[in-house]
Amino acid sequence: MRTATRSLASLLPILDWGRRYDRDTLVSDLVAALIVTIMLIPQSLAYASLAGLPPEAGLYASIAPLVLYAVFGTSRALAVGPVAVVSLMTATAIGEHAAAGTQAYWAVAITLAFLSGAMLLAMGLLRLGFLANFLSHPVISGFITASALLITAGQLKVLLGVQVEGQNFGELAWGLVRQAANIHLVTATLGVLTVAFLFWARRGLKPLLVRLGLTPRLADVLAKAGPVAGIAMTAWITWQFELNAQGLKIVGTVPQGLPPLTAPEWNLSLWKELALPALLISVVGFVESVSVGQTLAAKRRQRIGPDRELVALGASNLGAAFSGGFPVTGGFARSVVNFDAGAQTPAAGVFTAVGILLAALLLTPALYFVPQATLAATIIVAVLSLVDLSIFKHTWAYSKADFAAVLATVLFTLGAGVEAGLIAGVLLSLALFLYRTSRPHIAVVGRVPGTEHFRNVLRHRVDVSPVLLGLRVDESLYFANARALEDRINEEVAARPALQHVVLQCSAINDIDASALESLEAIDGRLHDAGILLHFSEVKGPVMDRLQGTRLLKHLRGRVFLTQFQALQQLAPDGVESVPGRIARGAAPLPSP
Amino acid sequence: MRTATRSLASLLPILDWGRRYDRDTLVSDLVAALIVTIMLIPQSLAYASLAGLPPEAGLYASIAPLVLYAVFGTSRALAVGPVAVVSLMTATAIGEHAAAGTQAYWAVAITLAFLSGAMLLAMGLLRLGFLANFLSHPVISGFITASALLITAGQLKVLLGVQVEGQNFGELAWGLVRQAANIHLVTATLGVLTVAFLFWARRGLKPLLVRLGLTPRLADVLAKAGPVAGIAMTAWITWQFELNAQGLKIVGTVPQGLPPLTAPEWNLSLWKELALPALLISVVGFVESVSVGQTLAAKRRQRIGPDRELVALGASNLGAAFSGGFPVTGGFARSVVNFDAGAQTPAAGVFTAVGILLAALLLTPALYFVPQATLAATIIVAVLSLVDLSIFKHTWAYSKADFAAVLATVLFTLGAGVEAGLIAGVLLSLALFLYRTSRPHIAVVGRVPGTEHFRNVLRHRVDVSPVLLGLRVDESLYFANARALEDRINEEVAARPALQHVVLQCSAINDIDASALESLEAIDGRLHDAGILLHFSEVKGPVMDRLQGTRLLKHLRGRVFLTQFQALQQLAPDGVESVPGRIARGAAPLPSP
Repeated sequence: MRTATRSLASLLPILDWGRRYDRDTLVSDLVAALIVTIMLIPQSLAYASLAGLPPEAGLYASIAPLVLYAVFGTSRALAVGPVAVVSLMTATAIGEHAAAGTQAYWAVAITLAFLSGAMLLAMGLLRLGFLANFLSHPVISGFITASALLITAGQLKVLLGVQVEGQNFGELAWGLVRQAANIHLVTATLGVLTVAFLFWARRGLKPLLVRLGLTPRLADVLAKAGPVAGIAMTAWITWQFELNAQGLKIVGTVPQGLPPLTAPEWNLSLWKELALPALLISVVGFVESVSVGQTLAAKRRQRIGPDRELVALGASNLGAAFSGGFPVTGGFARSVVNFDAGAQTPAAGVFTAVGILLAALLLTPALYFVPQATLAATIIVAVLSLVDLSIFKHTWAYSKADFAAVLATVLFTLGAGVEAGLIAGVLLSLALFLYRTSRPHIAVVGRVPGTEHFRNVLRHRVDVSPVLLGLRVDESLYFANARALEDRINEEVAARPALQHVVLQCSAINDIDASALESLEAIDGRLHDAGILLHFSEVKGPVMDRLQGTRLLKHLRGRVFLTQFQALQQLAPDGVESVPGRIARGAAPLPSP
Repeated sequence: MRTATRSLASLLPILDWGRRYDRDTLVSDLVAALIVTIMLIPQSLAYASLAGLPPEAGLYASIAPLVLYAVFGTSRALAVGPVAVVSLMTATAIGEHAAAGTQAYWAVAITLAFLSGAMLLAMGLLRLGFLANFLSHPVISGFITASALLITAGQLKVLLGVQVEGQNFGELAWGLVRQAANIHLVTATLGVLTVAFLFWARRGLKPLLVRLGLTPRLADVLAKAGPVAGIAMTAWITWQFELNAQGLKIVGTVPQGLPPLTAPEWNLSLWKELALPALLISVVGFVESVSVGQTLAAKRRQRIGPDRELVALGASNLGAAFSGGFPVTGGFARSVVNFDAGAQTPAAGVFTAVGILLAALLLTPALYFVPQATLAATIIVAVLSLVDLSIFKHTWAYSKADFAAVLATVLFTLGAGVEAGLIAGVLLSLALFLYRTSRPHIAVVGRVPGTEHFRNVLRHRVDVSPVLLGLRVDESLYFANARALEDRINEEVAARPALQHVVLQCSAINDIDASALESLEAIDGRLHDAGILLHFSEVKGPVMDRLQGTRLLKHLRGRVFLTQFQALQQLAPDGVESVPGRIARGAAPLPSP
């Protein structure tokens, strides 16, 4: 019985934290929810417009998903809802199937949320969370930076009130330059001022409020309301000066009421076409969400379960699909705000959902005069904080392979879109990893005097024997590098006429596959023909388990030694000579014994 | 001047061996060429029919390519020409663009040879020969076996004289069963008898000839003529008994003369569609050719240059394209025959080309009455020797991952065709490799008493210290496994309250990428918060070079030790305790000290 409750609790974290819920926790959660609600309203509207959907879709996408995440999620502070990058990916995916602003467009968005939810749920139940590990940090970083630039270029036309068509960053940027003469002055003035205000509100508003005598805590809460203030002010100005009559585009009528009950389109050919975008949206959303969740959990020494997070995000997206929303995930900024504001449990998410629900019921008439340029300003200010160009410098200094992966991700995202960019980054980083493992570093090793330790003869002053060649292969042996080892052994043996023994030090060989096993057999045969014995040393347990009973070990005329030192002691007890150890140019000095 | 000659000689091996050419070499090469010519005539005709082309195309594909390979190739014994698997791949690739037997079909074959030649040449000049290493031995073996079965199923209908349409092995086999009642008796009788004769000729003809008093060498040469004898006998029988009037299909008129001068179709959309098949044909042809070349070269302690082989095969295929041929490569059986017959230099290939040229000029009228069933029998007997089902047993016993790759290759090749099979096998073997590296084996290590060697506490009786945790990660650290290390360290640390030091033994870490570097920084920070120091030991030279100057090493509060032993000595000089070492179930016993 107890076990059943526990396993149910592990499936539904709400049963765990819900039982210990008390008044203090309630107050903390309510305060956090209030702050996040204030922050989420403008974001919801803005990201809905980024996704090409009417503003109310953003509000709907911030109600049911939040409640469902509270039930299934393992992070205490994650705030789910529409986010910038996923909204851009949504717009890209739907753009090929329907025109923005139409009812058909919204229906495709709902279908996309449904497919993404179903995929996330399936991945969670099949414990496929590890797949997200194949997105490297540099690829994610490059992808987010490039997406932010793409979003900025796309929103600038709204901010400046010009018409620009463009499929990629270059076209958008060039279009903006060519339309410079057609900028709509009222729109652009309002938009640029709003951007300036929002940037200032991020940094300067809180200190100002503190100087004005507010407590730091209250000042912090009010500073978070910067975007809401921006929306209220610009809407008031628009209404007061009837700027919409002068061509300023406004949000217009937003229906008032509960989220509608919606359903995805049951259209198999549409599903097929949306499958790849839905998968990419799922993976990107999951990675973004889990990174935030893990960072916040670590601060309070809590843990999150990646596979259960998949289930929770799947449920959230299914929730979005059935309540007029679009793909959602855990957002970085709002989760940090939620955490900093003191959210103790996912109940804070439920209270936020109630806040957004009230906004959908009561506040929407007030949104009529909100300029679209204000929403664009909100988006631009939010995504520009995601741009991190230092990743280029860091990866260039540390690893050219990582740099290449970042560069490919950024260039493809800017030039060919979010899907192509992500796929290019992942494929290139995997290809470069495979390439590296296919050309293993192979070192001739000798004994560091006074120790039982063996090191590269090119880097250390070591003792070697003319009758024994110690070789250390710095890679698991598998099909892609099996031939490289054959070639290298042939070379080394040809250069050593007195050789009697080759000892492969296997300390870095973590696996030997069937192709490499054949290669080792061939090497053993060829060495035998030349009157040389092949030995192994420091073979790891899991590798030794495999090799038991293979033809290689049965026919091996050499031996398997516990350590390279024992091999040297027993095969060449006398006659070692010292090798000076030319340190390769640029090589790091190694710790001395 | 000398250097220029050398580098030219390295580009054109003919300049090297050509200079030392003498009378003895000439005789050896002439004899080998005669034998290979006798063997190649029936094979050329048969593989042309397998590729869906008229018989003369096979002869043409065995003239110019052989000469070009002799000029550029590095293998002394490789015999280039049409081979079974590549011919099947050719038929599959062209089948989607033209109907077999038409002029358009041949034009596509020529274009395919051109594209394949251009790709091979480009890969050779860009030194991309290593790409072939990504085809694992089990995948190649499975692919060849499945292709041979597919070829056999396709040729059986010709052998039995029935009409069967089928896109895959299942359809072909089922079609043959359903057509059992419609078998053409004359064709089937002749075909089956030819198969029986050819099988017997492979094994029984040489001993018989020796018993009849011939020298073993001459008997060997005559036994190689088995297929030619088969063709001659069945053609004579057909002519004598006018079997073609009874419905036996014959080769018919084969034009007499020099190979025509042809050119590929300059049609970009056709090129795009043929690009993938051409690439696969190139890679498969290259792998087959290089394997044979390396095996033969090793027997005489010679070497071949994979990148120069690419250039040579590229030239051969371009030669085929401009002389009415189709894709060619180095064939296994004929190269072995060439080698055994004593070919000393690629000049043997030129003499073989002359032999085939004479056949094209003089012999073609004699081919009129050759039954198509005889060619089918030649193909079946040749390809059945390629079937190797033992690969299933071997890989199952040794490595389930390799087994899965073989199984996928075979099933996809039989069920969905050669291209799908090859791609499935390569992708699955790469995916399984990546999956394994993403879940590294991580061992807690202790000191093997009496040595300076550290081993897994679960497998060995070792000494450990309660204040020091030694961890050995058995994999390079990169994006796909960085998180696994974080998780494991968190777990191990949580279970050890007295812990003061964590020492990562890096003997199996061959690379640390930017993602893993970030993870290590995070681990260091988290351990520091818990009052524990992170150290490294046995960091390899190339990894240490990279880490110099990184934030990780700058901020590291622990140290980098030369060996794990020195870390233990200096961090926990006293207070080690012995751990019994539970040997995991099924684990191999390791060599004792």
